[in-house]
Amino acid sequence: MPARKSAQPAKPAPDSTRRSEKSRRAIYEAALALVVEVGYPKTTIEGIAARAGVGKQTIYRWWSSKADVLMEAFLDLGEQSLREAGPVPYAFPDSGDLAADVKAVLRATVDQLRDPRFEAPSRALAAEGVVNEHLGRELVAKLMQPSLDLYIGRLRAAQDAGQVRPEIDPRIALEFFISPLAQRWLQHTGPISYEYTDTLVDYALHGLAPR
Amino acid sequence: MPARKSAQPAKPAPDSTRRSEKSRRAIYEAALALVVEVGYPKTTIEGIAARAGVGKQTIYRWWSSKADVLMEAFLDLGEQSLREAGPVPYAFPDSGDLAADVKAVLRATVDQLRDPRFEAPSRALAAEGVVNEHLGRELVAKLMQPSLDLYIGRLRAAQDAGQVRPEIDPRIALEFFISPLAQRWLQHTGPISYEYTDTLVDYALHGLAPR
Repeated sequence: MPARKSAQPAKPAPDSTRRSEKSRRAIYEAALALVVEVGYPKTTIEGIAARAGVGKQTIYRWWSSKADVLMEAFLDLGEQSLREAGPVPYAFPDSGDLAADVKAVLRATVDQLRDPRFEAPSRALAAEGVVNEHLGRELVAKLMQPSLDLYIGRLRAAQDAGQVRPEIDPRIALEFFISPLAQRWLQHTGPISYEYTDTLVDYALHGLAPR
Repeated sequence: MPARKSAQPAKPAPDSTRRSEKSRRAIYEAALALVVEVGYPKTTIEGIAARAGVGKQTIYRWWSSKADVLMEAFLDLGEQSLREAGPVPYAFPDSGDLAADVKAVLRATVDQLRDPRFEAPSRALAAEGVVNEHLGRELVAKLMQPSLDLYIGRLRAAQDAGQVRPEIDPRIALEFFISPLAQRWLQHTGPISYEYTDTLVDYALHGLAPR
């Protein structure tokens, strides 16, 4: 998985594979810990290498920048929490009931936002993305876009089923589900709960005006 | 206005008032410039004083912390841009047409988010608020809450007029107007335009589901 730059050696010996896997985990953990402790600007490849107990060439062999290391470390963290949640496929549920499906996804997002392992590194990265547009756009492309695409797909299916008006732009509509929650979490503008995200879904689908 | 801590001297001489006003402006400008250049954590009262060309006791006489200085500097910046926009009262328009009123307010917000004087310091403060919950909550209480209250008041008036369903919670409903725009701006998740914010208002009022 970390083979972003170089070709892997053909058929590595089992010992070498185990050592690589151990180094990769140590590098991810060091990167996440450092960004929490010293912030993104002061996190360096050298610092990650020292903390992980590997040579910095080991990191440069697999990744081209600290942003790459951090984003893969972060993706890996998300995959870990998905695995722990049980054998759920990484797909948007489609039970035919759009409200129930979006509510379930948002409840899982609430759980993830409250997971202490996830919170500190994701806040550190998000804060840097606010002032560093290049990093911000990388975070969107690598960490957020896959989820946004799943929302778009689910909303299109709902349009096909006649549950969402055909003239609605799914890329904008999905923001009613994710942006209020994101702003409460990022800016501490209000508490986060299942009841709150359920309410967002109901208001978004049916609107504020009387019918 | 900066008399947050101490009593003002009774009847200051005109010269002294002018000097104070000049110092206050210099302090605001220094604080905003520093938070952009070195970030919130490294901005200090000493640094602001040096850059403004005043003694640090002058700052401590008027404010109790760098957060207070920055927030007043920021409020002052907002008031400046309001004054430049013409003789508009600081109130939410109520023409009787909720959609038109919210669209007008959001278009003004789009203009402010794009104002280069405003953008860098507000990004620097917002980024720090993401990782510093205490500061984040102060930003909400001092900089955002007055606007949120105006939205709540306007939505309540719309409920009284039968234009918003009575069971809707205005504090949650207002997030459909402000949070998608805030997330696009904070996280670089998408472009910002009048057309976009107009669409948010239409979707929020009428919902995504067919009527």
